[in-house]
Amino acid sequence: MTQDKPKAKTNPGNYFEDFFIDQELVHATPRTVTAGDVSLYTALFGTRFPVQSSAEFARKLGFLEAPVDDLLAFHIVFGKTVPDISLNAVANLGYAECKFLRAVYPGDTLTSVSKVIGLKENSNGKTGIVYVRSIGINQKGEEVLSYVRWVMVRKRDEASPAPRAVVPDLDAVIAPEDLAQTHANFDHYNYHLAGAPHNWGDYAVGEKIDHVDGMTIEEAEHMMATRTFQNTAKVHFNQHTEGQGRFGRRLIYGGHVISLARSLSFNGLGNAAFIAGINAGAHVAPCFAGNTIYAWSEILEKAELPGRIDCGALRIRTIATKDHPCADFPRKGADGKNHEAVILDLDYWVVMPR
Amino acid sequence: MTQDKPKAKTNPGNYFEDFFIDQELVHATPRTVTAGDVSLYTALFGTRFPVQSSAEFARKLGFLEAPVDDLLAFHIVFGKTVPDISLNAVANLGYAECKFLRAVYPGDTLTSVSKVIGLKENSNGKTGIVYVRSIGINQKGEEVLSYVRWVMVRKRDEASPAPRAVVPDLDAVIAPEDLAQTHANFDHYNYHLAGAPHNWGDYAVGEKIDHVDGMTIEEAEHMMATRTFQNTAKVHFNQHTEGQGRFGRRLIYGGHVISLARSLSFNGLGNAAFIAGINAGAHVAPCFAGNTIYAWSEILEKAELPGRIDCGALRIRTIATKDHPCADFPRKGADGKNHEAVILDLDYWVVMPR
Amino acid sequence: MTQDKPKAKTNPGNYFEDFFIDQELVHATPRTVTAGDVSLYTALFGTRFPVQSSAEFARKLGFLEAPVDDLLAFHIVFGKTVPDISLNAVANLGYAECKFLRAVYPGDTLTSVSKVIGLKENSNGKTGIVYVRSIGINQKGEEVLSYVRWVMVRKRDEASPAPRAVVPDLDAVIAPEDLAQTHANFDHYNYHLAGAPHNWGDYAVGEKIDHVDGMTIEEAEHMMATRTFQNTAKVHFNQHTEGQGRFGRRLIYGGHVISLARSLSFNGLGNAAFIAGINAGAHVAPCFAGNTIYAWSEILEKAELPGRIDCGALRIRTIATKDHPCADFPRKGADGKNHEAVILDLDYWVVMPR
Repeated sequence: MTQDKPKAKTNPGNYFEDFFIDQELVHATPRTVTAGDVSLYTALFGTRFPVQSSAEFARKLGFLEAPVDDLLAFHIVFGKTVPDISLNAVANLGYAECKFLRAVYPGDTLTSVSKVIGLKENSNGKTGIVYVRSIGINQKGEEVLSYVRWVMVRKRDEASPAPRAVVPDLDAVIAPEDLAQTHANFDHYNYHLAGAPHNWGDYAVGEKIDHVDGMTIEEAEHMMATRTFQNTAKVHFNQHTEGQGRFGRRLIYGGHVISLARSLSFNGLGNAAFIAGINAGAHVAPCFAGNTIYAWSEILEKAELPGRIDCGALRIRTIATKDHPCADFPRKGADGKNHEAVILDLDYWVVMPR
Repeated sequence: MTQDKPKAKTNPGNYFEDFFIDQELVHATPRTVTAGDVSLYTALFGTRFPVQSSAEFARKLGFLEAPVDDLLAFHIVFGKTVPDISLNAVANLGYAECKFLRAVYPGDTLTSVSKVIGLKENSNGKTGIVYVRSIGINQKGEEVLSYVRWVMVRKRDEASPAPRAVVPDLDAVIAPEDLAQTHANFDHYNYHLAGAPHNWGDYAVGEKIDHVDGMTIEEAEHMMATRTFQNTAKVHFNQHTEGQGRFGRRLIYGGHVISLARSLSFNGLGNAAFIAGINAGAHVAPCFAGNTIYAWSEILEKAELPGRIDCGALRIRTIATKDHPCADFPRKGADGKNHEAVILDLDYWVVMPR
Repeated sequence: MTQDKPKAKTNPGNYFEDFFIDQELVHATPRTVTAGDVSLYTALFGTRFPVQSSAEFARKLGFLEAPVDDLLAFHIVFGKTVPDISLNAVANLGYAECKFLRAVYPGDTLTSVSKVIGLKENSNGKTGIVYVRSIGINQKGEEVLSYVRWVMVRKRDEASPAPRAVVPDLDAVIAPEDLAQTHANFDHYNYHLAGAPHNWGDYAVGEKIDHVDGMTIEEAEHMMATRTFQNTAKVHFNQHTEGQGRFGRRLIYGGHVISLARSLSFNGLGNAAFIAGINAGAHVAPCFAGNTIYAWSEILEKAELPGRIDCGALRIRTIATKDHPCADFPRKGADGKNHEAVILDLDYWVVMPR
């Protein structure tokens, strides 16, 4: 049945030496997503995108019912990878090539698998970078999303030899033709009910949008979200330990900020109906309970989608800040350093009616 | 498709000048209510009214399953009106003629529309009062509830001329025969399972009931509730801004207090199975996280319901206080001013078995 | 219909004199458990046991869909007993003979009934101990769980005579053959997806496991949980009163700590798929918001289950502490007193694949 069992009953997580190229990891804790999770997602992030809010609106676009928020699916798939990939991580360094491939509905059961696609020991000999491609799979065996992330992981034994360095060749930007075809047909998209009049044609490359609103995060909120995603990273939950640590505070899961930024972006990008892909994401600075999150976006690129005249793709950079409204569009200064208020820099594709 | 689009991508909300008599507003963000929302409602307010708690109990009264709490439906319908009606409101002045017309079930999708029925500029020339009748509609196009509210809204330009003043003629009290016929048949109502022995006949006009229990509100709770309702009023969410504002605190959505008061009222009014109508409601003073809410009620009126011998209506005033138990039934003093602890004064009709 | 109605409209709860041997109490507020409650349970406790997390995983073991967590069912059944049994309780003294008899699924409606099986006035004449056997029943009339608890309850009138003392004869430990047959067939249990390799055979009597992780509790969290269970005990909710009381704080529902300890125990007991019974439980010390909960377990006994080769039972003691990691397995000292960090001592049976 089970062989080669570790002696310890508890999961120590993998250290840098435990990873090898092409290693496949089947992650634990399959999860049936439900209407309850969708309600919690709304309660925690206040999302208002209409397809995910209304079964009726979703049906008009060709869905069976309201699909769950793309990021809810992402966080659940991501959460499963934590016990195997990042329990001993020092830092979550980046994301790339994240593609949303298929709608997830309440009732679907998600599992995650990952493959190690890169390894590089750091020159200090204490840590190394692990690149994994993780895939979320539904109960039919269909891929619902796929992404690469890389994390800096501690070595168990600093004396262990460095593996051959393999750094994967990742797309800086997903080509629009590589985005999954959206299941949605926008011919009968109702802008009035959506609550925003502007469509794909109304946005210009270089345009900047201050999303205006701010949202303060409480400890109970980010912990409830992160537990909903069954993400077990210790830094989010244990004030007794973190109070004695680097920040003196529990650290908020970076995905919480991504979801808040996306929800805030409704005010200005209300018809950005789906996230089709994430090109890159960086958690520039830590976020703590009590911080108020603001966001602004810049349109980086506009792309037609193959064979589609009802919708197009916008490539967007959304910047989230803490305790700093975004009328001044804070990002990097002349010195190339991020503005001190910036906590998230996310580069992604959305699909929007045209 | 969409014409006359505003240049700004973000929603500035409507100012007093933007409203005109008979104006119809189709509000955004249709919302499918689910069992998840019902669970959150229970988690946040601790409601124990049996029809909404148990599908079995509800079926015995003739429902298909447990209808959602009347106030959950109200808050969702109300939330949709905020971006169009009260984003630039100074104050939410009152409610009237609120009628609960039809049961809302998990799976129903709610939308809201409003019609402007009154306008009156204030003498200071800076603000005006807008009266709207708002209607909540389900996916079959049926009205589920209807109410009037009036708000004080800022003018965009103080120099703009005042509109002709129109103040609607509103019923101070909904006549019992104008309440919607309840779908429930109380012949087989189980008082034991309901948890309270007293029926319609046991209450007397003038009777006062101290609901005894108190409930403290946390920031995470009122924000989760208000986001569940997709209510976007900024004052509830942004400590960074509100910390510098009038109160130095986030203001709790008035509807949160209504729901808490209703839940607390179970202890003393446990068989007040449904709210049939709200005659008037005033948020007398602001409420903040950390406040403990108490409530008491007075029976204002008893009414038979047309053609019904299984149930009757009670007109109730429920007063909610903060940090003040209600054994002394605090309300207005000899000077006509509300007791300093009073935060809510709600006049409404309930349906109760007899 | 209802006779002998109390004059007061509010529920004063029962005092010690109100109880008599063989008294049957039908508790109020039937409750339909839903997927929303399951989501909240996950959000609040971060549980990762796979049968309750995944409908697919559950079906492989022979369930129709994912059953709800045993403790969610317990807390809901328990909550209903509070208004009748422990509203005037000074202390919740113990549990025994708690048996989980049948899976509870979303959609099931639970009610509770209790029978008084013991009474003993305390020598101070001010309080007495009430023993009740409480049963949770689903909509088909099937018992889903059963347990005994005893509470110290205030007398209304100290002058009232003491009843004949009856102390029930309770099993210190439920015999393995008296545990309900599990509905699950573990032949196709997937250890990889479960996330833990160790099965029944891998545990040894006397083995101690430090569950490592810690979880900090917020006020909003324990109040949301306790309201979800419709548990009305006042001490959990009212800071205005409790702030002036013995602890100066709201007291956290003991069941909240049981659920947290069970969730933390996943790290080390990941295949302890179900709780089959609770032999004894003591809330050794109070728990407050801000406390970080840790847990450790000791294997007390291993038992085969009648006719089963796919699974076995482990009797476990799980100790939860506050603000104290459990590497030193804190419990009782040489003086027989509990370590000051210990807040829960729970003796229970789990079913585990073998």
